[in-house]
Amino acid sequence: MVQNNSCLILPDPDAFGLTRKVQGVDHLGKEISLNVVEEQPLTIWLNGQEIVTAMTIGDYPEYLAVGFLSNQRMLSKDEAVLSIVFDPELQTVVVRTDKPTNYEKKLQKKTQTSGCAVGTLFGDIIETLEGLKLPASKVHTSWLYSLAKQINQMPSLYLSAGAIHGTVLCQEDEPLVYMEDVGRHNAVDKVAGWMRGSQISSADKIMYTTGRLTSEMVIKCSLMGIPVLASRSGFTAWGVELADQVGLTLIGRMRGQRFQCLAGRERLIYDANFEGEEEDQKHRRKSAQ
Amino acid sequence: MVQNNSCLILPDPDAFGLTRKVQGVDHLGKEISLNVVEEQPLTIWLNGQEIVTAMTIGDYPEYLAVGFLSNQRMLSKDEAVLSIVFDPELQTVVVRTDKPTNYEKKLQKKTQTSGCAVGTLFGDIIETLEGLKLPASKVHTSWLYSLAKQINQMPSLYLSAGAIHGTVLCQEDEPLVYMEDVGRHNAVDKVAGWMRGSQISSADKIMYTTGRLTSEMVIKCSLMGIPVLASRSGFTAWGVELADQVGLTLIGRMRGQRFQCLAGRERLIYDANFEGEEEDQKHRRKSAQ
Repeated sequence: MVQNNSCLILPDPDAFGLTRKVQGVDHLGKEISLNVVEEQPLTIWLNGQEIVTAMTIGDYPEYLAVGFLSNQRMLSKDEAVLSIVFDPELQTVVVRTDKPTNYEKKLQKKTQTSGCAVGTLFGDIIETLEGLKLPASKVHTSWLYSLAKQINQMPSLYLSAGAIHGTVLCQEDEPLVYMEDVGRHNAVDKVAGWMRGSQISSADKIMYTTGRLTSEMVIKCSLMGIPVLASRSGFTAWGVELADQVGLTLIGRMRGQRFQCLAGRERLIYDANFEGEEEDQKHRRKSAQ
Repeated sequence: MVQNNSCLILPDPDAFGLTRKVQGVDHLGKEISLNVVEEQPLTIWLNGQEIVTAMTIGDYPEYLAVGFLSNQRMLSKDEAVLSIVFDPELQTVVVRTDKPTNYEKKLQKKTQTSGCAVGTLFGDIIETLEGLKLPASKVHTSWLYSLAKQINQMPSLYLSAGAIHGTVLCQEDEPLVYMEDVGRHNAVDKVAGWMRGSQISSADKIMYTTGRLTSEMVIKCSLMGIPVLASRSGFTAWGVELADQVGLTLIGRMRGQRFQCLAGRERLIYDANFEGEEEDQKHRRKSAQ
């Protein structure tokens, strides 16, 4: 058990502006009113330079901006962030640092990433992974089971509206920060933004995501220094390869008490009894594809 | 029934190079060998200009390149494509047209799209939708039920390896072209590339996808001139708004015989008996998030 036994940031399914009621019909022609997640542009600036326009659900724009810039290696760890200003009218976030930056050259080489993984990966990110070795922290299967169960049952935009991804920063069996967004990459970036602000250690953390374990997800998690990435969803071969390279424990297809581990298996500690427990219908994720 | 009653392009789960066996362990610590989809970079060039590097499963690189450029409005409908050259060593596709193009300015303004929807949307695409009205073609619920059932049961990389999206171009109750890719945007772009090459009409088609109905999916489908977009997954509010604007019939959360229609409801023809049929466990999609 970690010291802090309550989640620091939880989803707020009732927050204003994150969902909207939309009218329609169902398969029987019956009128329905559906709770649908919002999706809106947010343009991220770094000093005087427009970097990217992300489509986001709209919460935590400051974390999203700082996390995106950090995960893209546009904002280095030792660079001081002087201010982060969100303008809801203009739908912009301006991040200011203590030195001017120019990423035009990098912007010219864009990598359109896969797996429904948005995320503009720049050419040098893959190189950044070279030589990186994550701490070899152990993972208890009891933590994984407990986390999956807690996260599935927490109130969330997923449960109230669907069609959204979740990413949860965890420590042992405690969820600490649970972010949701239309794209899973945004949810991860928001966690990264929060971590940068809180100066929390990454070495003893576990990242749980609803999204697939593609190269992009493995890269983001590695750059954040988190040694364990667990998901409800499946793998890509390159994701597994990169995880092997940096020493990331990669666990996928977590459903009920079942999972598959394709990298870092030597760090798993099987301390939970497998009772063949399945997820109940209500908490099976199915819509956030 | 349409004239052609066999699918023109089907997934080939056994094709060389699309999946790889990866060793790991399961929740019991038992050795497993898992079939995992590949994910590799493909750099798309238009004439002398490098446009984007997409992460893709690797099949149909020519369709992906042409479809991507078309859907980004970098390749107009009346522009002649002189050659499409795929180099498997360099992992590049070079598309050559009869006039030089320069998209550097557009490349500077990148839109990172949402919903696990990669796809670099350029500033003027939204404007392109203004004034667009799709043909008001009717949709029979019997077609939808039949399509969903056929598509779910066809051999596919999804069924053999999981963690992949599918997009199927259909006409009435016939699947015509079924493309899969790590990202759903790539799968749609591959269909667009095929359509451009085949000069097939779009007005009487239905696009079926496993991915969510975000703004990006609605935009791509609209620009392809297809008036119906149906999905297993859910909606975003902006996706619904754009569909309303261009007259796209938007059907989501198709599971068994259930669905929800949030735009274009007046075009639905309820000609199928609802028998409450559920999908069997095997064919429920769950991993391609």
